[in-house]
Amino acid sequence: MAGNSFGETFKITTFGESHGDGVGVVIDGCPPRISISKEDFIRDMARRRPGGHGISTPRKEKDEVEILSGVFEGLTTGTPITLYIRNRDPDSRPYEVLRQLFRPGHADYTYFKKYGHFDFRGGGRYSARETAARVAAGVVAGKILEPLGISVVAYTLMVDGIKAKSINLDMVEKNPLFCPDPKAARQMEEAMSKAKKEGDSLGGIAEIRVVGCPEGLGEPVFDKLDADLAKAVMSIGTVKGVEIGAGFEAAELKGSENNDLLTTDGFQTNRAGGILGGISNGDEIVIRAAIKPIPSIGLEQDTINREGKPAKLKLAGRFDVSAIPRIIPIFEAMVRIVLADHYLRSKAIV
Amino acid sequence: MAGNSFGETFKITTFGESHGDGVGVVIDGCPPRISISKEDFIRDMARRRPGGHGISTPRKEKDEVEILSGVFEGLTTGTPITLYIRNRDPDSRPYEVLRQLFRPGHADYTYFKKYGHFDFRGGGRYSARETAARVAAGVVAGKILEPLGISVVAYTLMVDGIKAKSINLDMVEKNPLFCPDPKAARQMEEAMSKAKKEGDSLGGIAEIRVVGCPEGLGEPVFDKLDADLAKAVMSIGTVKGVEIGAGFEAAELKGSENNDLLTTDGFQTNRAGGILGGISNGDEIVIRAAIKPIPSIGLEQDTINREGKPAKLKLAGRFDVSAIPRIIPIFEAMVRIVLADHYLRSKAIV
Amino acid sequence: MAGNSFGETFKITTFGESHGDGVGVVIDGCPPRISISKEDFIRDMARRRPGGHGISTPRKEKDEVEILSGVFEGLTTGTPITLYIRNRDPDSRPYEVLRQLFRPGHADYTYFKKYGHFDFRGGGRYSARETAARVAAGVVAGKILEPLGISVVAYTLMVDGIKAKSINLDMVEKNPLFCPDPKAARQMEEAMSKAKKEGDSLGGIAEIRVVGCPEGLGEPVFDKLDADLAKAVMSIGTVKGVEIGAGFEAAELKGSENNDLLTTDGFQTNRAGGILGGISNGDEIVIRAAIKPIPSIGLEQDTINREGKPAKLKLAGRFDVSAIPRIIPIFEAMVRIVLADHYLRSKAIV
Amino acid sequence: MAGNSFGETFKITTFGESHGDGVGVVIDGCPPRISISKEDFIRDMARRRPGGHGISTPRKEKDEVEILSGVFEGLTTGTPITLYIRNRDPDSRPYEVLRQLFRPGHADYTYFKKYGHFDFRGGGRYSARETAARVAAGVVAGKILEPLGISVVAYTLMVDGIKAKSINLDMVEKNPLFCPDPKAARQMEEAMSKAKKEGDSLGGIAEIRVVGCPEGLGEPVFDKLDADLAKAVMSIGTVKGVEIGAGFEAAELKGSENNDLLTTDGFQTNRAGGILGGISNGDEIVIRAAIKPIPSIGLEQDTINREGKPAKLKLAGRFDVSAIPRIIPIFEAMVRIVLADHYLRSKAIV
Repeated sequence: MAGNSFGETFKITTFGESHGDGVGVVIDGCPPRISISKEDFIRDMARRRPGGHGISTPRKEKDEVEILSGVFEGLTTGTPITLYIRNRDPDSRPYEVLRQLFRPGHADYTYFKKYGHFDFRGGGRYSARETAARVAAGVVAGKILEPLGISVVAYTLMVDGIKAKSINLDMVEKNPLFCPDPKAARQMEEAMSKAKKEGDSLGGIAEIRVVGCPEGLGEPVFDKLDADLAKAVMSIGTVKGVEIGAGFEAAELKGSENNDLLTTDGFQTNRAGGILGGISNGDEIVIRAAIKPIPSIGLEQDTINREGKPAKLKLAGRFDVSAIPRIIPIFEAMVRIVLADHYLRSKAIV
Repeated sequence: MAGNSFGETFKITTFGESHGDGVGVVIDGCPPRISISKEDFIRDMARRRPGGHGISTPRKEKDEVEILSGVFEGLTTGTPITLYIRNRDPDSRPYEVLRQLFRPGHADYTYFKKYGHFDFRGGGRYSARETAARVAAGVVAGKILEPLGISVVAYTLMVDGIKAKSINLDMVEKNPLFCPDPKAARQMEEAMSKAKKEGDSLGGIAEIRVVGCPEGLGEPVFDKLDADLAKAVMSIGTVKGVEIGAGFEAAELKGSENNDLLTTDGFQTNRAGGILGGISNGDEIVIRAAIKPIPSIGLEQDTINREGKPAKLKLAGRFDVSAIPRIIPIFEAMVRIVLADHYLRSKAIV
Repeated sequence: MAGNSFGETFKITTFGESHGDGVGVVIDGCPPRISISKEDFIRDMARRRPGGHGISTPRKEKDEVEILSGVFEGLTTGTPITLYIRNRDPDSRPYEVLRQLFRPGHADYTYFKKYGHFDFRGGGRYSARETAARVAAGVVAGKILEPLGISVVAYTLMVDGIKAKSINLDMVEKNPLFCPDPKAARQMEEAMSKAKKEGDSLGGIAEIRVVGCPEGLGEPVFDKLDADLAKAVMSIGTVKGVEIGAGFEAAELKGSENNDLLTTDGFQTNRAGGILGGISNGDEIVIRAAIKPIPSIGLEQDTINREGKPAKLKLAGRFDVSAIPRIIPIFEAMVRIVLADHYLRSKAIV
Repeated sequence: MAGNSFGETFKITTFGESHGDGVGVVIDGCPPRISISKEDFIRDMARRRPGGHGISTPRKEKDEVEILSGVFEGLTTGTPITLYIRNRDPDSRPYEVLRQLFRPGHADYTYFKKYGHFDFRGGGRYSARETAARVAAGVVAGKILEPLGISVVAYTLMVDGIKAKSINLDMVEKNPLFCPDPKAARQMEEAMSKAKKEGDSLGGIAEIRVVGCPEGLGEPVFDKLDADLAKAVMSIGTVKGVEIGAGFEAAELKGSENNDLLTTDGFQTNRAGGILGGISNGDEIVIRAAIKPIPSIGLEQDTINREGKPAKLKLAGRFDVSAIPRIIPIFEAMVRIVLADHYLRSKAIV
């Protein structure tokens, strides 16, 4: 039983490959009478697009979102919304040399073992290209959250050991790294340029904050809000860890230090990260994600081929140095999708 | 839409409260002809039970698992298996004083906001008592994994800043903390005794390892094996963070450092933690979970009551100092449930 | 992937066998703060119970519903409600003779082929006993519908070719056949007595009416209200056909005859049976179900045994002559469950 | 929570409207390495297409299926398969007159009540156009069934009271009505021509037969094979009734007449229609569906407008006289989808 759907009430099903015709998403469960137009997608698709700032790959993808269904006279109809992003340059000939080789750190090997083949053309389904559909779906989710006053912002917290020291959300959109600390942003850029020259890649840490989330979202004991957020975040290709609130730091605290005391003005602290018992508590939701370095590097690596024979692999072409910053809008999208889903789910309780 | 089911093909639905009649689970999708008896549950229920070692609460719970359905003449029938654990001492009078007060760090507040009430009798549904049903379900999941040669072991990695320095799995069952390093185990016990005397509580870090997992489990792009594991682990009450393989450390590595190279003898390293692209790669699966300190402490805390008025709260009674070690078998159970589910799901592909 | 759950938002999972410990149901998704007590179940459990009127089997089952979870201080909590009905007389020795033989018309053969065994003790999971859990769940569903003014009533329309000629709902509870035509009811009783003497069994037709259903329930294009009702009704053991509104008669009408014209006072006619395009139209919902004769008969029948060898089977003991009237409250329960589910689902659209 | 997905393991999600960009389906869960090409769809899409035989509407729809994802080098990859059928002539201007009026027998009224609007351009989502996506998905399902030797054939049993007297499956494709009795077919054609001249429409009955279905498909107690078939068939727009095997006739039989006795050569009769206890018994599966007359007729009808005011409606344009014969391949498609899904589900039991 395949797993390309996410959400229960606001349910998305994504499809498509990096070098096929395109990628897309069907959204089932979006309420009717919500205004949606092609223009709504431009900002986030651009933020996800490579090549904006000289750091990401210069490969050009014009990610225009087509609305194939579910919107009539500018409004959602309550029927499935299909968003489609055509692949513009699906020239897969350069990938032909990879037909036999498993790229280290990529899913070539596991797809081959599971499905009896793998898509040597840049990963196909397991390419980061797939996330374009998530970002498009996240825009629709955002349309549900906006009138509720719920906003989601993600940003870069760390790259190559360089940490943002200040969290100034106004700065996030003002540098190519979506970093809330402009000084750290510049250092991160330098580190990325250096890694690029070395033919290597970098990981990092992102943080996602949700402001304005009402109390009561989350469906224990399994579909807790934090559990679903963890799944949503971990389902993004390069993520290897996720934390809520104090996260791994909480493991070193005492109860008297970690408990957020309740006051007449709300919680005194927010080590819980806005979620108690799997249900939003009205405070800011804070999530962090650990991002591994992109496995595609310019250095020669040992590997094996389909027949299990040893081989050397040196990838040519132009790769992103890091999933950061392109992954930032993907985090926002997935968190929005979780929140829209849980908001709609919570309406069954009255 | 409530969220008390987990899994797709091996699907569990848990029910019950800490001070109701009991807690239980219905397992739908367990293959027929598997031998199950009451005795199978004894070991893990005992490991989860408080009071085994003077560290946990001396409250006595005799957690006998009754098999209410789905097993005939000692074998599963393919129909729903219901496991039930009666609450032995559901005296809720001592909790009466909590009827009006939200305990900091607990879900009293959020349940009240969501459902219009909360279960002041130790949390009811959001009590750790609920996890007894998970452990029982995990035993059945283990019965599916065992003939496949898949084994799951969890252990304590850190308590109060004290880390296990060696990972000797033979030692895990030989100390009350399920710690693979006996020396660290003794220090952890001391730290827990100290915290107990102070009326405080401790968190910690657990690690879970899966040995013998075949290649090919996991259903991208959303029901990736790591995504479902993250959800499973995060759905346990006190967990605030989850990592796979190198986890947050991967965020600081370069691609050339983090990639696990493929050799004719398998992967050279295992920074991936046994999962690539959301699919098991045949290597050991490694998961870590951050556990917050138990919110119930003996120190006086500020809080508010149902009417929003400020109040002081000093919990009487006997609480666990830490979710460790009782949480250890719960991790094993949830990971087994995820693996059994994904194993059965993978069979639809031939 | 097993199929013992039904519903999406108001989701029931049933379990248990005829000669095991008991049968039960977990209801996940029932809104909180609804008053539920053991007494609420008495009426419908009694109506389903055999032996009420000398027509059904005199086997005595005292079907007391225990509330194992989800209700606190008389009110639902929003957490899973577990209802349990213990089997009182699970003496399975008389069934021992059936261990090797497939009973014609029963599911012995197909269970054996699917699961590698079958429950010779009266069918086990595929016994009509299983429906006790459905009836209990239907009572809870009814608690959701009642304040909305939605009521469901089922009755016997035909037995052995004898049709109810008048539909007087006030008469339904006044005869053991739940027949709206008292005269037909008496004839039906006679036919049933005759069949009983002959060692044979009878089928029949039931009709279910929903009064007060608001417009807008149903989720096209697959979870249409009529599609889900058809599934719900067809999932009951002896049902072989289901109709909505004019049903098979509509197949012989012209469009000009079948269309229900809209007027300022509502629909002029109701051949649609209250559902248009899979969505309730505010009119009465009308469903009919064809019920096959109970396969257990006192006459000798040809069959085969587990080894495929021919055998003769003559069932001893006391069987119901017909699924009617005991099936009547089961129809009501299943229809209530569908409506409660779709009502809660519809709340996600605002 | 919207309902545009069907199936659990072989799961389809359809989207699109009659006068939007197109209609399509995402299939999640199709096994990898199955050969699929555009040509595979031609036959069934043509059979569903109007205008083949002068009986259906002459509106021209060239229903070419585009494969947007999930197939690489001619083989399925195990990732989501998206099939898309573009609307060729989405001129919606002629429909403008319907903007304010509810067409009797159509879902205009209920969609308006549910979603706050309705698609006056021929129904939009609730147009029969939606079924093109089902037929396309059915072709893929058929690819799974074919190597198993399972075949599905549907045909017309009755139109306007004219019944097929002989069931010669070789004749089905040899007349425009897909009728197994050529003589009845001619009479049906005449009846349809007559109704067309009168500006009226006709319903009918279709029968679907599954040959070669192995024992063991179906997941009691709710996802029984007959329950899922009933839902699948009833989810098609004009269907008002569904029967399995003897169906409503079984209601008039005695147990001794209705039971299919088991012999060493299989079942002696097949009144069960190939399903016992919700599980296929290896015999032929037989389903019948009652089809209401198409609500679009050329005669003037009373109705009301959006404001609830009375109005007269006389539809211009060219409509099908009956859902027969175009509905025939839709039945085949839905039954294939149910069988493919249950076949894959059954593989979780070993």
